[in-house]
Amino acid sequence: MPELRKDPIVGRWVIIATERTKRPHDYGARAEPRRGVCPFCPGQEAMTPPELLAHRPADGPGARANAPGWRLRVFPNKFPALRVEGDLDRSGDGIYDRMNGIGAHEVLVETPEHAKRFCDLSEADITGVLEGYRERMLDLSRDGRLKYVMIFKNHGATAGASLDHPHSQLIALPVVPKVVSEEMKGARKYWRLKERCVFCDIARQELKERERLVYENPAFVAFEPYAPKFPFETWIMPRAHRARFEQTSKEDFAYLANALKVSLSKLNVALGDPPYNFILHTTPFGDDHPAHYHWHIEIMPTLIQVAGFEWGSGFYINPTPPEEAARFLREIQV
Amino acid sequence: MPELRKDPIVGRWVIIATERTKRPHDYGARAEPRRGVCPFCPGQEAMTPPELLAHRPADGPGARANAPGWRLRVFPNKFPALRVEGDLDRSGDGIYDRMNGIGAHEVLVETPEHAKRFCDLSEADITGVLEGYRERMLDLSRDGRLKYVMIFKNHGATAGASLDHPHSQLIALPVVPKVVSEEMKGARKYWRLKERCVFCDIARQELKERERLVYENPAFVAFEPYAPKFPFETWIMPRAHRARFEQTSKEDFAYLANALKVSLSKLNVALGDPPYNFILHTTPFGDDHPAHYHWHIEIMPTLIQVAGFEWGSGFYINPTPPEEAARFLREIQV
Repeated sequence: MPELRKDPIVGRWVIIATERTKRPHDYGARAEPRRGVCPFCPGQEAMTPPELLAHRPADGPGARANAPGWRLRVFPNKFPALRVEGDLDRSGDGIYDRMNGIGAHEVLVETPEHAKRFCDLSEADITGVLEGYRERMLDLSRDGRLKYVMIFKNHGATAGASLDHPHSQLIALPVVPKVVSEEMKGARKYWRLKERCVFCDIARQELKERERLVYENPAFVAFEPYAPKFPFETWIMPRAHRARFEQTSKEDFAYLANALKVSLSKLNVALGDPPYNFILHTTPFGDDHPAHYHWHIEIMPTLIQVAGFEWGSGFYINPTPPEEAARFLREIQV
Repeated sequence: MPELRKDPIVGRWVIIATERTKRPHDYGARAEPRRGVCPFCPGQEAMTPPELLAHRPADGPGARANAPGWRLRVFPNKFPALRVEGDLDRSGDGIYDRMNGIGAHEVLVETPEHAKRFCDLSEADITGVLEGYRERMLDLSRDGRLKYVMIFKNHGATAGASLDHPHSQLIALPVVPKVVSEEMKGARKYWRLKERCVFCDIARQELKERERLVYENPAFVAFEPYAPKFPFETWIMPRAHRARFEQTSKEDFAYLANALKVSLSKLNVALGDPPYNFILHTTPFGDDHPAHYHWHIEIMPTLIQVAGFEWGSGFYINPTPPEEAARFLREIQV
């Protein structure tokens, strides 16, 4: 059973993967180049755990579960960091706190086409992926033990992707992750002071000044944040106040797919198919004060090595001003 | 002039390096293998800015500044992330906050011997390096604009070291870095609840239980923390309550050099000369409530790729339980 442990000083939760424990010599081994059959490809469905969700035709060929014919396919991670079975057992250990590693860890295969990049999918297919995120979030929100669903995508080996076939991951947690609870806290503080959502104020300023703007459409704005941790960090936010990703309308998912495709394609051209991560930030389950929080997607290209200073200080050195990155990205036609 | 910018949601400060701006094509270029003359070697002193501090014989050959003969040599970084000249000018930018990038960025060359590893230096030489840290901190603490001095070491290219010759770095900041202010806040909360220092309680529990203990001597304890972010993360802490690194006694510096050398040597043997970072955490300048905070050094070997999930959540997945890492390190004789 994996275990969740809490840092007694800053309150950060860590997943200790007790089942797949890595011993010292495991870290020395170089990753082998990937060979052979891709378990995420159509026809290899038996290589993965049974699917939790798939987008398939309603009948005819392709309608059968765990067989080819899908556009999107979701199944549990074969090597999960957390497990859905068991009780949420919290306990102390002297001054320390731990709990069972209850949660979910799922893989969302975004397309049957192995060699496609996410940014090369059609807007309709990207819309399908985003709707798949929502379907899984709604399903997991019914499990009262879970407080947050983190959805993210790693593209490229240096951004942490262990398989080439385009896929996202989902981790459902019994606690709210530190980054999200800090954002909630900061946004709440701002709301108490101004009675406005800080994200709405950011969207307004970016749309007015336009110097950090990357792209806009009727429902979304893509921009370089004012104080980016990383060069070419790009955020995509709904223009209107929206607390929860899973309440996005069908029409807005199409606009989001457009903003995501355009932003990723611009980064792809500007930086030569860089490795990147994107992460969805949204309101935790059960939080009933969503007036101050605003869901968004943060895209972070993996361009620089994060070193001791950043880890130790939480203070980032970014060698590209966001205004320059945005100007560059705006000029790229995709 | 570099600029400090504050994230309007979580309050994180970022250094935007406006002078050495990297444009998109700069990120594509691969690092060239290092060739030619090392600017940190004896005889090449003219290749660096003039020294701020050096440990040299009082007279005779080697006593002359910016010439060979030193054991430790400190000078400003040639490409500083922050600059000491100018006024600490804070200003707003719509809803955003910025200030001039005032601060210091220095390099501490730890030994004249290019090919030595830090863990292979004698305990006397490591003591000299630690005393050098203190001398620079005391000097910088006299500049009222500065609130914190972050001292860290990157060993190995994947941990961010851009030159092989053993060296540490120092960044002095006009703000307290987020990680340190979070630790201060957490430690203050614990102190209010229990009227005890949380770090002292941790040291007591680790010395009693011993399952995460790596090494101890009369003044210091080295252990794997209960909720480590990274595999083989190792902390070194004074056994007695000590808020400020710069108040360490001469005798304790010798014990610290011993604990640091032993811990790094064990990691070196266990993991095959891994890249690593270590970072000194200490009480900010001017903080007059040091009853709750306890300085320490955090060593983080760079063994795993940190990916989207970690960046997006502040939630780490660690595949090696600290008890196993500690048992392994304890068994290694150095």
